[in-house]
Amino acid sequence: MTSSSVPRTLAQALPQQIGQTVRVAGWVHRRRQLKSVAFLVLRDATGLTQVVFATPASRAQLAELPEETVVEIVGTVTANGAAPAGVEITSPQVRLLGEAAAAMPFDLFRPELSASLPVQLDHAPVALRHPQRAAGLRVSAAAVSGFRATLDAARFVEIHTPKLVGSATESGANVFGVDYFGQPAYLAQSPQFYKQLMVGVFERVYEVGPVFRAEPHDTARHLAQYTSLDAELGFIADHRDVMAVLRETLAGMVATVTERAGESLAVLGVGAGGVALPEVPTEIPALHFTEALALAGAAPDEPDLSPADERAIGAWALREHGSDFVFVTGYPMRKRPFYTHPDPARPGYSNGFDLLFRGVELVTGGQRLHRHADYLAALAARGEPLAPVASYVEAFRRGMPPHGGFAIGLERFVARLLGVANVRQVTAFPRDLHRLTP
Amino acid sequence: MTSSSVPRTLAQALPQQIGQTVRVAGWVHRRRQLKSVAFLVLRDATGLTQVVFATPASRAQLAELPEETVVEIVGTVTANGAAPAGVEITSPQVRLLGEAAAAMPFDLFRPELSASLPVQLDHAPVALRHPQRAAGLRVSAAAVSGFRATLDAARFVEIHTPKLVGSATESGANVFGVDYFGQPAYLAQSPQFYKQLMVGVFERVYEVGPVFRAEPHDTARHLAQYTSLDAELGFIADHRDVMAVLRETLAGMVATVTERAGESLAVLGVGAGGVALPEVPTEIPALHFTEALALAGAAPDEPDLSPADERAIGAWALREHGSDFVFVTGYPMRKRPFYTHPDPARPGYSNGFDLLFRGVELVTGGQRLHRHADYLAALAARGEPLAPVASYVEAFRRGMPPHGGFAIGLERFVARLLGVANVRQVTAFPRDLHRLTP
Repeated sequence: MTSSSVPRTLAQALPQQIGQTVRVAGWVHRRRQLKSVAFLVLRDATGLTQVVFATPASRAQLAELPEETVVEIVGTVTANGAAPAGVEITSPQVRLLGEAAAAMPFDLFRPELSASLPVQLDHAPVALRHPQRAAGLRVSAAAVSGFRATLDAARFVEIHTPKLVGSATESGANVFGVDYFGQPAYLAQSPQFYKQLMVGVFERVYEVGPVFRAEPHDTARHLAQYTSLDAELGFIADHRDVMAVLRETLAGMVATVTERAGESLAVLGVGAGGVALPEVPTEIPALHFTEALALAGAAPDEPDLSPADERAIGAWALREHGSDFVFVTGYPMRKRPFYTHPDPARPGYSNGFDLLFRGVELVTGGQRLHRHADYLAALAARGEPLAPVASYVEAFRRGMPPHGGFAIGLERFVARLLGVANVRQVTAFPRDLHRLTP
Repeated sequence: MTSSSVPRTLAQALPQQIGQTVRVAGWVHRRRQLKSVAFLVLRDATGLTQVVFATPASRAQLAELPEETVVEIVGTVTANGAAPAGVEITSPQVRLLGEAAAAMPFDLFRPELSASLPVQLDHAPVALRHPQRAAGLRVSAAAVSGFRATLDAARFVEIHTPKLVGSATESGANVFGVDYFGQPAYLAQSPQFYKQLMVGVFERVYEVGPVFRAEPHDTARHLAQYTSLDAELGFIADHRDVMAVLRETLAGMVATVTERAGESLAVLGVGAGGVALPEVPTEIPALHFTEALALAGAAPDEPDLSPADERAIGAWALREHGSDFVFVTGYPMRKRPFYTHPDPARPGYSNGFDLLFRGVELVTGGQRLHRHADYLAALAARGEPLAPVASYVEAFRRGMPPHGGFAIGLERFVARLLGVANVRQVTAFPRDLHRLTP
């Protein structure tokens, strides 16, 4: 039987094919030469398959199949309780699907990658094949799918907004300059202005896309490009309506990760003895900023929460409410961007919030200004010029409802979810101060 | 009864609320003063609602509610066969949710926008509120959803790849330069290299994201930023496996547009007397490039198909096969990028294809090289240097299966589907030679 006459069978389907001749294909994950028999472990997108080389001729062939070589194998599916998934392939006929692979920079077949993170990142196309690295990216894909599914079900419309903009969207100098047909332009630091304008069109919108920060610091949680999960909704009473949608969204993301990436979680040891996936409570506890300062024992005139304060608040939420999550609302206006809506009852404080997850900030959001006059006043009060944001502010003269939204950094969300220390471990090809390739 | 004590009812839900007091909210779409009564048409994300102002006092109030002002209205749902959806709101109490809107640059309440496309684009945040412009973007969102759903069901994994790269990914000079922490960098013209490398990780991947072309031409089908729907899959026999996945994907996109954006299609007159949504045949007809030239009456040594050739081939597909779609395979190697896989039987021709839709190119795809030695030979034969693509080519030394893929330009796809002349009509905030705002 020629290989091309048999359709390919995936590793996960082999237990249903015992006794059949099948064609499998994938990467040589590992070879093991024993005294009287040799094994090849084949890796495909669905798992590992043990292939038995029993004859001297076939055992000799294994020497020409270094790890990561891509092969197809026609053989017989044979039950073996000691093999992965209870089956193995016997009487294999092997065909190369490309060339024999060159020597690897590190072993992929060990349970953990022994290479340092910088070495992994230098060799990302290879390192990402390791089941643990691949699992992190599968969790990421499931999380995004859950974000979209939750918001689709709640009447949100997906949008795609410009990444090339005429002026910086967030304050601060961390912006990349682009030569735009001879004009100065910038890479968008967020879709903030555009998602607000699109509330005027669809009431509720979301975007999943890259954002760019010329971040001069080399930290475990900053990237020069990351994937931002942005949502914005109109006809709200205040920020609490935004918090309710964020709660639903997080619950949907965690549920979809559980449903669609269960095997990946198992590979990563999440939920089984290691870090547990969080439960998103029906009502996430919330503290006003002033209460949060008092609870953390900080001075009442502090303008922001320190990392130690956030940990104290996270510990409080777990202790008092059994919750991994806690909202802090009412951050001082002076620490929030100009488009932030103040608390009508206490104008020095905002209708902005942070969501802390296990004592660390995970999401920022809030209610935005929606009156044109308020934008002019806010810019004037801060001494910020109108010109760079004129076309954005102008749109608020044409009728905008009360609205607000939030943004989740995908890589940071996944890293926190999986208990991973560095966002680069859950990013395929990270960009930072030192890294523009691969 | 205060407005805040009644939850908001959307326009589409009003027919189920006859006799009830409801709270509706949205934009003042249109006002009409008749002799004895006045009407306000309210627009929300789900439709239009007629509100009746019968008393002199309420009629006077209408003068202070210019079009596009955001209001909430508490009133009674009353059956009226002459009103949209058979109901209207009577005895309204109106409350502003922001400020009275400033004068509009053009009327939004007319069936068609009378403003020219450049004027619409200058005022995009307003123009996009017109039901026809909004409908185009809803179709776009549904098309992307169908793309993802089809590929998710076929084991593809969603990826997010760098938009900041160290070298151009496609040949040609149409690349935007970025100052990357003092180093020269570029905006990615496609995720081509990254999606190929990720085939080594997941076998099958897709990405929906922005791509950037410093397109110096001002045409109806080019943008400086567009949304690319990219897919790539491994373990293929040749390009025909890619074409089969593309067919499934297009069918899924058209089906999802029909399911999720049916009202938007109706607003645009698609499928009802106007342009019809295409049927994607189970087997899309395919012609080899040499057959296509002959069929179009072009000289057999032409290196590419002219627009007139493409129209002739489209007409042939419709006439002979009743198909709006036709594949042309085997484009000459010299017109395809260096990573293109040649036809083993006719090495001057490629395993690359174009998909024509109603006589115009819609999608490009094909099989890629997968052997490291072939990459080196292809670059050498073209006289192209290895250095700019070294980290990409290096990955092919580590075992890559035969693979291929395709890319669909979202804006172009939606424009063709809806019979719209200019891609800018189905792009929220287009970027081109002349346009960096809004």
